[in-house]
Amino acid sequence: MFAIAITLLVLEIAVPAVKGEHLFSELLHEWPVYLAYFISFMTIGAVWMEHSALVDALDHIDGVFMRLNLVLLLFCAFLPFPTRIMSEFAGDIPGERVAVVFYGLVLLMMTLMLLIMGRHAESAGLFGDDLADERTEKARVKYQLLPGLIAYVAGGALGLLSPKLGVLIYLLIAIYLAIPIREVTRLYRKRV
Amino acid sequence: MFAIAITLLVLEIAVPAVKGEHLFSELLHEWPVYLAYFISFMTIGAVWMEHSALVDALDHIDGVFMRLNLVLLLFCAFLPFPTRIMSEFAGDIPGERVAVVFYGLVLLMMTLMLLIMGRHAESAGLFGDDLADERTEKARVKYQLLPGLIAYVAGGALGLLSPKLGVLIYLLIAIYLAIPIREVTRLYRKRV
Amino acid sequence: MFAIAITLLVLEIAVPAVKGEHLFSELLHEWPVYLAYFISFMTIGAVWMEHSALVDALDHIDGVFMRLNLVLLLFCAFLPFPTRIMSEFAGDIPGERVAVVFYGLVLLMMTLMLLIMGRHAESAGLFGDDLADERTEKARVKYQLLPGLIAYVAGGALGLLSPKLGVLIYLLIAIYLAIPIREVTRLYRKRV
Amino acid sequence: MFAIAITLLVLEIAVPAVKGEHLFSELLHEWPVYLAYFISFMTIGAVWMEHSALVDALDHIDGVFMRLNLVLLLFCAFLPFPTRIMSEFAGDIPGERVAVVFYGLVLLMMTLMLLIMGRHAESAGLFGDDLADERTEKARVKYQLLPGLIAYVAGGALGLLSPKLGVLIYLLIAIYLAIPIREVTRLYRKRV
Repeated sequence: MFAIAITLLVLEIAVPAVKGEHLFSELLHEWPVYLAYFISFMTIGAVWMEHSALVDALDHIDGVFMRLNLVLLLFCAFLPFPTRIMSEFAGDIPGERVAVVFYGLVLLMMTLMLLIMGRHAESAGLFGDDLADERTEKARVKYQLLPGLIAYVAGGALGLLSPKLGVLIYLLIAIYLAIPIREVTRLYRKRV
Repeated sequence: MFAIAITLLVLEIAVPAVKGEHLFSELLHEWPVYLAYFISFMTIGAVWMEHSALVDALDHIDGVFMRLNLVLLLFCAFLPFPTRIMSEFAGDIPGERVAVVFYGLVLLMMTLMLLIMGRHAESAGLFGDDLADERTEKARVKYQLLPGLIAYVAGGALGLLSPKLGVLIYLLIAIYLAIPIREVTRLYRKRV
Repeated sequence: MFAIAITLLVLEIAVPAVKGEHLFSELLHEWPVYLAYFISFMTIGAVWMEHSALVDALDHIDGVFMRLNLVLLLFCAFLPFPTRIMSEFAGDIPGERVAVVFYGLVLLMMTLMLLIMGRHAESAGLFGDDLADERTEKARVKYQLLPGLIAYVAGGALGLLSPKLGVLIYLLIAIYLAIPIREVTRLYRKRV
Repeated sequence: MFAIAITLLVLEIAVPAVKGEHLFSELLHEWPVYLAYFISFMTIGAVWMEHSALVDALDHIDGVFMRLNLVLLLFCAFLPFPTRIMSEFAGDIPGERVAVVFYGLVLLMMTLMLLIMGRHAESAGLFGDDLADERTEKARVKYQLLPGLIAYVAGGALGLLSPKLGVLIYLLIAIYLAIPIREVTRLYRKRV
């Protein structure tokens, strides 16, 4: 499901309707489109990895967890739409402002849902009791996502003043979430 | 397969072709598009969860079950088309009427196929005999879907008179199916 | 992979660009589009089920089998394109003729690849030796696909004379392949 | 994920907007589109098979491997975009030149990422120590990809002079990667 959303993003990139001699400059000129693609890809990728780590650490799931999961998927599957809007309104300042805040809201909801799922898993006792590693996972989901949440709110607020600054913050969050300093070594599982 | 259909829905949402200064009001104005997206997403999500619960409760499958399954997939995979039609004809009363009934028919067929699959599984003895939990699942599929079926017929009929009322009913059914009061705790399985 | 190709088919169906009052008649008028969708869906579905049955009966796979599999996927993944062409040229007799033969060729290649994979599996000893059921599977793939192959050639040839007759034959083959008289009961496997 | 990217490629093929009587010649005339489709399909297919072979040979994965994997997916998921550009600028010499180099760069990055993943797996000790077969896999990934890498650089450079020659080289690499002389027999795994 994450795999599908992440792969569909490319369909939102339009082929430039220019003559061949301007293709090179047009491809360079389209950098906001690639940037939006990159941020969305890395954010879904990071959420995907966190989600896998969370689900792997669980002993069992309950009905609430399944429904929270469906809402997380709702926001992830919706992301290609604000991504495209942000690409298309790049350079059009009033539109950019709306697009960047709209995009940031969806990113925020994705991270928030994941945090809520982690919290629910803990309060409902869905984690097993046996392994120290699992406790690390729990902590990881809780403490790594929180700065991301705050940064999204800050990014959205700054995006109202300067859309480009907002986008820069989203990019930094995606990198922060996807490339954590901590290393997680785990047994190979068949779904890489 | 459900994951793919649910993710493709976003491709049906068109980016508004307006100037940046009107983007905010245009995004608000497009609420029927988001509503159609939400109903389709939650309905496929609910069918997906019911289908998982049914298949998990089975001991084995037979050829008839596989073919019924293919027909269920046919209707689920087709749903993005009536969803888009309902979005595009929102506000155009005579078109809305046709679109809402057409959409409701596909939702009805999805639920009906799932009910038929549950019935077939029972009559063909595809459930195991050992677990009380499984009997609960059987009962669940049978009794929870039935009110949904009747409500779809009512929603479609009301949709002929007032399309907006029909859509409201579909929304309520999606919520009823996706968020049941009963809680199902089960062992974690690797395909969440 | 089959699941993805089968779900993407819906993206090829265009929303009619008519006023609301003509939506009903336009939806009825678009029946060749639904028919093409239905034939493609059922044919991929049938190939999917045959492919699953074949792969389940195997003891191991070799490099040749994997590459034959890639070629089968190539034709399945390509099917949405001739499907769309057949839909769009319906009613335009000279175009219909080309479209029906082109479409039939891709269907033929899908069935042929599956037959070749079954043959290779047998000649390379990829089947286990232990179970009578497996021998049944082998026979099934071999004997059920052969009439399909011959019928595709006949359908394509007739399609040159009368495109509508060709399409009717493809429809009958899809039904013949998807709904065999033989029933295969097998242990439930997690990928339904 | 590879399955999705490989299946989405077909969506980039546009239906010719001609009258029915010219459909046949138009379909023949569109050969660069099919060629681009074929090269992209076979290259992703080859990377998919190599990736499966690599991952199967691993004993466990670490965080770096997961992140390298995400970057590999980034380039594979992006491939439909340069594929479409190459199809659309076929015949427009200055555009063809840019398109062929751009396309080759993405193919190069895919192969390079796979090579880096193989190297990292070896240096981080992710392979098990027990099986001779696994050592063969290691060697295979390392030695088979290297000529591909060099050929992509050569193909891109030649593509600047003669785009058609560059495309021919990409085609040959795809075939070289997808149809190796070595045969790998392995136990059947459920994800064919």
